[in-house]
Amino acid sequence: MDSVVPPKELYGIIGYPLGQTMSPAVHNWGFARLGLAKVYMAFPTPPERLADVVAAVRALPVAGLSVTIPHKEGVGALVDRVTARAATVGAVNTLYWDGKTLVGENTDVAGFLLGLGVGSGASASAGGASAVVPDSALVLGAGGVARAALAGLREAGVARVAVCNRSAARAVALAEEFGVRAVAWEARYAEDADLLVNATPLGMRGKAEEATPWDAARFRPGRTAYDLVYNPLETRFLREARAAGCAVVDGLTMFVGQAREQFWLWTGCELPETEARAVVLAAMGA
Amino acid sequence: MDSVVPPKELYGIIGYPLGQTMSPAVHNWGFARLGLAKVYMAFPTPPERLADVVAAVRALPVAGLSVTIPHKEGVGALVDRVTARAATVGAVNTLYWDGKTLVGENTDVAGFLLGLGVGSGASASAGGASAVVPDSALVLGAGGVARAALAGLREAGVARVAVCNRSAARAVALAEEFGVRAVAWEARYAEDADLLVNATPLGMRGKAEEATPWDAARFRPGRTAYDLVYNPLETRFLREARAAGCAVVDGLTMFVGQAREQFWLWTGCELPETEARAVVLAAMGA
Repeated sequence: MDSVVPPKELYGIIGYPLGQTMSPAVHNWGFARLGLAKVYMAFPTPPERLADVVAAVRALPVAGLSVTIPHKEGVGALVDRVTARAATVGAVNTLYWDGKTLVGENTDVAGFLLGLGVGSGASASAGGASAVVPDSALVLGAGGVARAALAGLREAGVARVAVCNRSAARAVALAEEFGVRAVAWEARYAEDADLLVNATPLGMRGKAEEATPWDAARFRPGRTAYDLVYNPLETRFLREARAAGCAVVDGLTMFVGQAREQFWLWTGCELPETEARAVVLAAMGA
Repeated sequence: MDSVVPPKELYGIIGYPLGQTMSPAVHNWGFARLGLAKVYMAFPTPPERLADVVAAVRALPVAGLSVTIPHKEGVGALVDRVTARAATVGAVNTLYWDGKTLVGENTDVAGFLLGLGVGSGASASAGGASAVVPDSALVLGAGGVARAALAGLREAGVARVAVCNRSAARAVALAEEFGVRAVAWEARYAEDADLLVNATPLGMRGKAEEATPWDAARFRPGRTAYDLVYNPLETRFLREARAAGCAVVDGLTMFVGQAREQFWLWTGCELPETEARAVVLAAMGA
């Protein structure tokens, strides 16, 4: 008879549906790896139950929460405070307690920055020699993940940033909000950016898996291609960029980065990056 | 890097304070022992937060709950249905889901019966040759645990039952409610019961540890003494009963029995009794 150390603190993820989330695997592994008496669970939360679930977070209490689709925009109104990053992005993907204050944060920004080697929070020791902060960047897409990328590029001090989207009106609005240039979708190959960010869903496992936002012949050697899609790990976008001589950063880097930032907010501890990445890959069945 | 199987269902205990509860140790051990993806946590719940916490049980949802002091009487009004046993005892110590119905049950009755070798629910296979159902019983005490004992004695079909309490009025009221005799505290030694049940807190670790409800010289050989106090495991009451030639049943039997019944309601699986008892003993530091 082996005794089991009961967990003392509860964490979880809300979203709907939650079938494919890798977050329980990575956070429970991290808690076990660091010997923390904590546990992380999936709480599938249909939209009509969001307010009740956040009330439950306060009542039990739940020590921290990851937030995913479709609640990233709505949950901000239910917390006590949102951070500047979450306000900039207009979305919350993390709840944590600052004393008795329930705070909404967006760790996708830190996750994005980690892909550029720029330290932040959990990864404050990153950066330095490995940082690849570009002078210019073109963000493809204008959804929630594009907003996190734009916030990250602003924080990293990237001087020239443009955004480009198949629906031009959204790109124009987003460009105005973030003080960057909007580029027409058809004109994207005229941009000469050091960093190309795929923030569209093109290339994601499923129907769009063989799609790409960038023609293979248009990659320029020596530039960096950063895909925010992480499943599959090597998208067509990254495969063709690498073949054309570009440096590549995959979406798993951002995913693991946002998870590391959450873990740090919740525990004050660093989640080991390389191992965490292996855990997510194993959970993905890759 | 070992992956960790994330728990899928959450259980817990509410009460206030919750410093000494052995329930997380025994249930988490049981989940691990049977390979169930479940976890059990302590949710300290001050009285003013009880309604919010039960709402949280519905919202997340929590798959089951143990309920202890001071909520056993109050939580019944917050569930969808209470069982006949819980209604008889007037207290709920377990919440479980019957489909979408949140049910309040009292497993202390089954736990008490297990100490008599009488099967019930989780322990339906108990009883038979090992059952020691007495013809007559005297219950010392008139609190919540006495009510569970009286409900159990009724279910076991014990013909002659009496209840006796230092505060006579409570014994009289309880006797009337359960259709048994009330005996004055001073007259308790005149009772000639096969089974003597200590349902007072006398003998419990702390200030009353060396107290006992029964004079050592008054035990009669061949009878049974059943202490519902389980910490310490061997109370003065049991030590002196054993020395006088009585059969003894300790309070841990009832504690493990009520936990086994909870486990069965939540999982449909039997918690191995002997091992569970060892787990509780280890958690008590005994």
